Amino acid sequence: MSYPMHDTPYSTAAETMIRDAHCFYEHGWLLGTSGNLSVRLDDTNFLITASGRDKGRLTPDDFLAREIARPGERGANSSAYPTDPSLKPSAEECIHQAIYARVPGVGAVYHVHEPYSAFCSERDANLGSTRMSSAEMIKGLGIWEANPRVRIPIFANHADVPAIAAEVDAHLSDPANHKIPGVNIRNHGYYAWGSTPFEAKRHVETFAYLFRYSWELGNGA
Amino acid sequence: MSYPMHDTPYSTAAETMIRDAHCFYEHGWLLGTSGNLSVRLDDTNFLITASGRDKGRLTPDDFLAREIARPGERGANSSAYPTDPSLKPSAEECIHQAIYARVPGVGAVYHVHEPYSAFCSERDANLGSTRMSSAEMIKGLGIWEANPRVRIPIFANHADVPAIAAEVDAHLSDPANHKIPGVNIRNHGYYAWGSTPFEAKRHVETFAYLFRYSWELGNGA
Amino acid sequence: MSYPMHDTPYSTAAETMIRDAHCFYEHGWLLGTSGNLSVRLDDTNFLITASGRDKGRLTPDDFLAREIARPGERGANSSAYPTDPSLKPSAEECIHQAIYARVPGVGAVYHVHEPYSAFCSERDANLGSTRMSSAEMIKGLGIWEANPRVRIPIFANHADVPAIAAEVDAHLSDPANHKIPGVNIRNHGYYAWGSTPFEAKRHVETFAYLFRYSWELGNGA
Amino acid sequence: MSYPMHDTPYSTAAETMIRDAHCFYEHGWLLGTSGNLSVRLDDTNFLITASGRDKGRLTPDDFLAREIARPGERGANSSAYPTDPSLKPSAEECIHQAIYARVPGVGAVYHVHEPYSAFCSERDANLGSTRMSSAEMIKGLGIWEANPRVRIPIFANHADVPAIAAEVDAHLSDPANHKIPGVNIRNHGYYAWGSTPFEAKRHVETFAYLFRYSWELGNGA
Repeated sequence: MSYPMHDTPYSTAAETMIRDAHCFYEHGWLLGTSGNLSVRLDDTNFLITASGRDKGRLTPDDFLAREIARPGERGANSSAYPTDPSLKPSAEECIHQAIYARVPGVGAVYHVHEPYSAFCSERDANLGSTRMSSAEMIKGLGIWEANPRVRIPIFANHADVPAIAAEVDAHLSDPANHKIPGVNIRNHGYYAWGSTPFEAKRHVETFAYLFRYSWELGNGA
Repeated sequence: MSYPMHDTPYSTAAETMIRDAHCFYEHGWLLGTSGNLSVRLDDTNFLITASGRDKGRLTPDDFLAREIARPGERGANSSAYPTDPSLKPSAEECIHQAIYARVPGVGAVYHVHEPYSAFCSERDANLGSTRMSSAEMIKGLGIWEANPRVRIPIFANHADVPAIAAEVDAHLSDPANHKIPGVNIRNHGYYAWGSTPFEAKRHVETFAYLFRYSWELGNGA
Repeated sequence: MSYPMHDTPYSTAAETMIRDAHCFYEHGWLLGTSGNLSVRLDDTNFLITASGRDKGRLTPDDFLAREIARPGERGANSSAYPTDPSLKPSAEECIHQAIYARVPGVGAVYHVHEPYSAFCSERDANLGSTRMSSAEMIKGLGIWEANPRVRIPIFANHADVPAIAAEVDAHLSDPANHKIPGVNIRNHGYYAWGSTPFEAKRHVETFAYLFRYSWELGNGA
Repeated sequence: MSYPMHDTPYSTAAETMIRDAHCFYEHGWLLGTSGNLSVRLDDTNFLITASGRDKGRLTPDDFLAREIARPGERGANSSAYPTDPSLKPSAEECIHQAIYARVPGVGAVYHVHEPYSAFCSERDANLGSTRMSSAEMIKGLGIWEANPRVRIPIFANHADVPAIAAEVDAHLSDPANHKIPGVNIRNHGYYAWGSTPFEAKRHVETFAYLFRYSWELGNGA
């Protein structure tokens, strides 16, 4: 399945991530240079934050373009969008790669270190997921059915990041797992994606609300 | 009883909602495109946010004008204020309709997904309301008596939104229930209204304080 | 004892309060038009916020000048600074009056509805005060001794505001009670003052930290 | 070991601290004029905030340059950067001195009154440190090993600040203790440092996340 959107210009992608990252930073979800954001440029390339930048103060020089890889392969710097060779993508780029490769139509992947998702991941680690069944905000994930059964999966936070990516890749190789537009990493933070940056931002914010709700009211509320 | 205010120009109504929604977004009450705001334009029309917009970044193109309906009837796009036909009002417009139709003199209806109201709604669901008896901030609801008996009613969050609207409409058909300028929806968020946008904003913020207070100190504090 | 500062121009006083109130609003301490601020203009007059204004959006038109009264007397609109007669001071102006009249050298009185002070007031109501003995931030109140014994007094929130003012006035008639530059009102919020607006702001923020600290760690920590 | 960076111009150092302090203030970590920041200017001088300034509103006049002292000695006003003699450095300058003197290559020292660090310090006082073993954010401290054993040391909050500095100095005289780029003071706040202001800011924010995480999940999570 090919990417359904019109191509997004490089400068638009960068400006959108600068603005969205600043917004997430102000919510307290990207402290200490944590997290990483990417936006698809076209069928074969995406733009991603360089490693180690202050997410509250990104500039247009803090991004590099990468080629979308096949599942199980590493990406490379984009030939279509030449990049300053001194820039390195986040070590977690491989998780972005798994998401772009496995979920059709993804236009943006945002990874944040939102605190409540980490709290819930520790509480619910043995269950393998955080369950949410009743909050209205579930609709913000694009799930409109009555009495939805929503489980946000929790992945182990391997020190070897490609090992995390492999488990996310395996999870997303089953299209049934595309219904929930995000995965949570234990003691770490979550990835959320969408067909556009607008939708990815909506999913980031919706997960933030849902994890806070779950933490205050208990798993299953 | 007719609407007592001077008419509010379309652009003033939109600018006020852009500013108030941004303020509420920064408080964390409108994450993930949630919530909806409306302001009355004149005796028979109100302006409401279009469905699915980012409430932290509203623009003048994110609104549409609707006719105020009679209780039990659906509204229609305003003939006095022609609207881009591609815009759809929030699915929850029917609850705004019930409030405009039932409460005399309402000039604005603001609906927010403030987290503590959801926590309290789950805790107090069996009681049918959240009781507040002692906080000074109750005066912010326009209730100045000593030892007020304030109960903020909780409505079931039916998947069928018109069913929620019908219950809110029945509640507001009794003028004795107009004393509290808001209703809370379980696991969802609350609606607050006022004779002006200024008053509706004050009620939104006052409820936010009161729900946080109730959550920290317990129902009845 | 006469007022030791140079006179503060009316416009400077208003601008300072606009800026400080906006700052406190953003901290969440002045929701729903709550709170009130005043700054001394000279030996016999102070400028105070008009009743019912949005503290996040004050303008120069939201203030009126009042004469400092003797303890037990009500103030009047200032003859030196004529005021739009439609403006009314906050109902809590009488508490400002008690503070200006009783504490020598006070240059500003700021009243905020900070949530943790309300939580602590309910928890500690039977004790009559919230005790703080160890937090470094106590120095922010101007108390630098080792092992200070700090008790922030709690006053009943009478529906009759002059009754609160009378109790605050009696408390401040004892100069030994001037050491702590603030009083807390049960279920309501606190008043903090200082020789300048700068110092009053520092006291407001220090109390906010200390009440949060006390609420998290328990009375006496 | 000499300082490896190029010299930082005075105006750049001041502008960086104005911006970083404002950011920390907005997070709620520098209320009530608390905290202090310094940036190294060259091998023998650093710029530090003057005592008692509002950290949300610093101006270029709120700094003074000091000479880096040998361990156990007090610093003096910089001869290379003459300073308005009315300005006094924070009383806690001596702790900055210990850090610059003991840790090679430090380019900035930031001290904040972040609330969760104070809560954890009280909870963990008997243990002498707050332990953190699993949060991904530990990488923000520059610690990338798997299963790191991280203990953030807690120092007593002596009323005599030089006594705190002496204990921090003794701690940092062991290079093995340089691995964790910060120290926590009981009931007070923490110091974080880095080779650049950028790195010091990253460490401040990372500690803030880690203390909140530890407070919510318990010591050792």
